[in-house]
Amino acid sequence: MTPPVFDTAAIVRATTPEMVLTAVRDTLIAHAHGRTTVPPPLHLQFPDADGDCHVKAGWVTDTPDFTVKIATGFYRNPTAGLPTNHGLVCVVSARTGQIRAILDDQGLLTAWRTAAAGALATHAMARPDAATLAVFGTGEQARLQVEWLARLRPIDTVLVHGRSLDKTGALCKEFNTLGLHARPALADEAAAADMVITTTPATVPVLQAGHVRAGAHVTGIGTDMPHKSELPPGLFARAALIATDDHQQCLDHGDFGHAVRAGSTTDTSDTPVGLLLERPIERPDGAITVADLTGVGALDAAVASAVLRELAP
Amino acid sequence: MTPPVFDTAAIVRATTPEMVLTAVRDTLIAHAHGRTTVPPPLHLQFPDADGDCHVKAGWVTDTPDFTVKIATGFYRNPTAGLPTNHGLVCVVSARTGQIRAILDDQGLLTAWRTAAAGALATHAMARPDAATLAVFGTGEQARLQVEWLARLRPIDTVLVHGRSLDKTGALCKEFNTLGLHARPALADEAAAADMVITTTPATVPVLQAGHVRAGAHVTGIGTDMPHKSELPPGLFARAALIATDDHQQCLDHGDFGHAVRAGSTTDTSDTPVGLLLERPIERPDGAITVADLTGVGALDAAVASAVLRELAP
Repeated sequence: MTPPVFDTAAIVRATTPEMVLTAVRDTLIAHAHGRTTVPPPLHLQFPDADGDCHVKAGWVTDTPDFTVKIATGFYRNPTAGLPTNHGLVCVVSARTGQIRAILDDQGLLTAWRTAAAGALATHAMARPDAATLAVFGTGEQARLQVEWLARLRPIDTVLVHGRSLDKTGALCKEFNTLGLHARPALADEAAAADMVITTTPATVPVLQAGHVRAGAHVTGIGTDMPHKSELPPGLFARAALIATDDHQQCLDHGDFGHAVRAGSTTDTSDTPVGLLLERPIERPDGAITVADLTGVGALDAAVASAVLRELAP
Repeated sequence: MTPPVFDTAAIVRATTPEMVLTAVRDTLIAHAHGRTTVPPPLHLQFPDADGDCHVKAGWVTDTPDFTVKIATGFYRNPTAGLPTNHGLVCVVSARTGQIRAILDDQGLLTAWRTAAAGALATHAMARPDAATLAVFGTGEQARLQVEWLARLRPIDTVLVHGRSLDKTGALCKEFNTLGLHARPALADEAAAADMVITTTPATVPVLQAGHVRAGAHVTGIGTDMPHKSELPPGLFARAALIATDDHQQCLDHGDFGHAVRAGSTTDTSDTPVGLLLERPIERPDGAITVADLTGVGALDAAVASAVLRELAP
């Protein structure tokens, strides 16, 4: 029997934010305690087509399924009327090796688990009374990070900083439709918000460490390769608490690694973000906190398994 | 639109040995000339279930598709009435990153491309008048290596050496049904055949270097991980010509690597097997030749693409 293939429409119908938030929270905690298997990803490049392919696998120890995820990005596709990103998730039994299902999610589950991880980290680490949220970037993750954080706590004002004024305006309009109060902001003003989330593919920092206010929290989710850089090393030097979703991965290709190599912090200064989700953190007044999230493969396994339980109970 | 899934029955109907032999030959030649992309594989282990999963990717430069192959081995499955191995091949466009199809081949294409590579190397390197063929091992590859070599050249006698006399007898019977003259043989007699192919998961050499005769050819295809070992270092010391399907891979986890580390040969003594397929080789009388094949990911891409051209022209 060939494995069933579920398309995005079926996946959207079967998935709730609560399901994703629970799976992501549990898995970040499991990962913090070493109860996951996440091998180094496999990577191919297609320079002539300006494309690449990443294959990531992950497993939460003792759960019934693991996943192998294929994600491609071909950056000239839009000129041919095709989406840039494609991908699917294979759900495989960790007990028999049988391929149970293929989720033809086109990257949707990755987008959701990334948004959920960012929202959970930001909510756990920010001051309970933090009111303003700034987001750097205007892409899919800029939209999702704000939407998912708004599920977890009230937000007074959303400041959007993007390179394109058109896209910034369009995203503010979307947020306003959702009942959030959003407006475009310059980088300096955005960096001074109570909560800051960066979601860009930048290769140089998008904000200045000195503009972040005492008592603020900053979550970086855009830096996932060694040549990318969103958060300045100086911000890590100012931080009273640094959280990483995966110590080695953030050291290898996150902003945490840039800060360590710049001498702004040490390679033992970080705390697994999962530990901060387990119980409320002690947050000294005026402390700056930073979360560097690079994406953990075990999250794919947990979210895909949860979705598949709905699709094929 | 979700990608189509083709099952083994459809794949068997669409595939001919000629198609596989042509794809494998062309790709080994392309690989010898550096015209392939083969990233290091991704690997997961499930100790409690005695299982593992390998993910391999490959691309022949400038061809339209690449592949990502998932292969699992869960060694306790037979006790539950399930096959040990599962797997599938995703065929992805190297121009747009779109997943074109899923070949639910259950490892069949890997078995065929491995058999074709072994047969092509053995045929190209053995003396034209070599008459006896010995095979070590009684599994699927023992059967396939003999069958595929018999497509390329006449074979007088097949000697089968296995640990289980029952399985050895059964395999001889299968070969006799195909019109080959097969009989069980002890290791020493088998090692003295004109052509020797080893297909075992052995962790210590299965034959003695001194038993291989002048003028013989030996192909090893079983050693594909550092802890495995089929061919003794002394055989590489005696060899006038050593071929590898991938220099680095054979150095890292083939018998060639064991021989280099034992000081029996040097790490520059090997020739890419693809070069030997391009033109007939000069073979001094009495020379011993050895091929160490560990399996190249680009072969999966070439064979899967050829099959998909038949399935979805």
